[in-house]
Amino acid sequence: MPSKTVVLKGYAMTDPSKWNDLKVIEFKPKTFAADDVEVAITHCGVCGSDVHTLTQGWGESKLPLVVGHEIVGTVARVGDKVTEFKIGDRVGVGAQRGSCLECRECKDDYENYCPQSINTYDAEYPDGVVAQGGYSTAIRAQERFVFPIPDEIESRDAASMMCAGLTVYSPLKTHGVGPGKSVGIMGIGGLGHYAILWAKAMGAEVYAFTHDDSKMEDIKKMGADHIVDTGKKDFHKDLARKLDVLLSTRDMFGDKTSLDHYLSMLYVHGVFVTVGLPDADDPLPSIHAFDLVPTGCLLGGSKIGSKKECLEMLELARSKGIKPWIEELPMSQAGKALQDLKDNKVRYRYVLTQDIA
Amino acid sequence: MPSKTVVLKGYAMTDPSKWNDLKVIEFKPKTFAADDVEVAITHCGVCGSDVHTLTQGWGESKLPLVVGHEIVGTVARVGDKVTEFKIGDRVGVGAQRGSCLECRECKDDYENYCPQSINTYDAEYPDGVVAQGGYSTAIRAQERFVFPIPDEIESRDAASMMCAGLTVYSPLKTHGVGPGKSVGIMGIGGLGHYAILWAKAMGAEVYAFTHDDSKMEDIKKMGADHIVDTGKKDFHKDLARKLDVLLSTRDMFGDKTSLDHYLSMLYVHGVFVTVGLPDADDPLPSIHAFDLVPTGCLLGGSKIGSKKECLEMLELARSKGIKPWIEELPMSQAGKALQDLKDNKVRYRYVLTQDIA
Repeated sequence: MPSKTVVLKGYAMTDPSKWNDLKVIEFKPKTFAADDVEVAITHCGVCGSDVHTLTQGWGESKLPLVVGHEIVGTVARVGDKVTEFKIGDRVGVGAQRGSCLECRECKDDYENYCPQSINTYDAEYPDGVVAQGGYSTAIRAQERFVFPIPDEIESRDAASMMCAGLTVYSPLKTHGVGPGKSVGIMGIGGLGHYAILWAKAMGAEVYAFTHDDSKMEDIKKMGADHIVDTGKKDFHKDLARKLDVLLSTRDMFGDKTSLDHYLSMLYVHGVFVTVGLPDADDPLPSIHAFDLVPTGCLLGGSKIGSKKECLEMLELARSKGIKPWIEELPMSQAGKALQDLKDNKVRYRYVLTQDIA
Repeated sequence: MPSKTVVLKGYAMTDPSKWNDLKVIEFKPKTFAADDVEVAITHCGVCGSDVHTLTQGWGESKLPLVVGHEIVGTVARVGDKVTEFKIGDRVGVGAQRGSCLECRECKDDYENYCPQSINTYDAEYPDGVVAQGGYSTAIRAQERFVFPIPDEIESRDAASMMCAGLTVYSPLKTHGVGPGKSVGIMGIGGLGHYAILWAKAMGAEVYAFTHDDSKMEDIKKMGADHIVDTGKKDFHKDLARKLDVLLSTRDMFGDKTSLDHYLSMLYVHGVFVTVGLPDADDPLPSIHAFDLVPTGCLLGGSKIGSKKECLEMLELARSKGIKPWIEELPMSQAGKALQDLKDNKVRYRYVLTQDIA
């Protein structure tokens, strides 16, 4: 088949000083490969990563740049080696669109940790093509990073599962969340609300940590067994050694967070996992070996999730009828969605719908 | 049986300004309880904890204070409820001599993490009696914290297993060290040399990290597969993502340790465990979520070990004929042993032998 000249369109940042003033641009997609799937995008969630990247918090980004990595759409083209998908299938793409497929990580079903991982946007292919994200008409991704969406899950609901949902599902699964386990969720936004939904569906007892009164009713409806008001002094003391896993979705720490208080709530060999990635100038609050040794607890990270985990998560959502709490906006209003997210006004995830003619 | 008035003797610090100038004192042991075992001490190892405690690095200690918690001796008396031991048995006592035996931790075989744990020395019993350690004639401990020494293991060899040996055995076991796993050991002193011996016996590939040329030959003889010279610039780069577990026995960090370099050597979900407890004013070096998220690695602690683990460790030593590298000194020379330890001159553990008349 002769190579097609394809031009895609997307809402791009062109000037970092106007980080959320996005303009429609045309861009060239990656060269289509035999294991690629091209997806015509219908929906894209708005993730905190989009804000960190556009505001240059994680370093200097490419320009112009289209962000967005919570993508759902329909398959528009498949490479010759693709076996899993056909044109018209409803699929998703998350925060990763490629990896080497040959390293130890890729072979161990840890392709999300592949050192040659290609991010869905703000990455560069070897041929110099810049990876542009999902606030756009279409995307090309390796088959391994394309996920089939079950018929019972609407596209609007599936979109934010691709990053927010998977990013919290993976550590919950890795660290053994299930019946008989107590799980704390810190930071109840897009990721945190998914963590409550999944952890409950997995059979755990869920403690939601928030200092935002306006979210407390919602959190009960999401199914959390306990709400812990982190605005109260010594809130951690009643929970000493109660939690098996404490998942933090916070993407900023600053100096005032007492990580030792959080660690003190972990049972023996309990795990505090951060999935949030603060800006480069915002390290983890200082701790002492005294905060880890008395319970043998651990502090760790987690990065999105594997395809295996994504398929499990989608099956959990399908079989239990789990729906995220989302608000829809046309893609042209991405700038407003981004600003609301930066201002912590989202309840609990924006999903953009395609409107590029 | 009417209660006996017993007076014990030990080498005590009486003045913190002369931290290792120890004088024989008489002291009253804890009130003998029905589940207690009294051990007439023949050997006691010299642990870094002894130095931290005597130099007041972990805070103000009791006075006068007898340290030492790597104890071996023979059973001199058993309480009415003791079923496991009889007078004359050869036994050991480590860094813990009591716990509540009723909490979740104690019931889960995590009695080493019991919140009401009683340390072997520098603790106070509810009746005001100060727990004095093993540089002494005898000790009383709950049966749960007394370990039978297999006939094939000499007392001189068993002594330092009670704390140094167990403290590194426990995290190696907890974090799945065995065939097919790669384990790094950082800090090759009393604890680190045991970690090499155990990890090899457990079937792992062992990387020993040191910047001390004078130890390299010894480390090879201990069986390490690889020696990594931490004095070399970028030593960590060749080992990126190679290790499943990295065990740190270091008990000081200071500002210069690049913890991120160590974390970068961990494979996906790999674990960096510190068993060292630096002084109170020496926190862990600062890290960023960026050091944890890209591999989902973890940073944790571990505290001595449980009786279950101690019995496993002793069986491993017995069945494989493992001997620690020790130097013996009479107990009256405890001060020299402590000074040598502080000066990093020990190869690799001092064991004191009883000499109080």
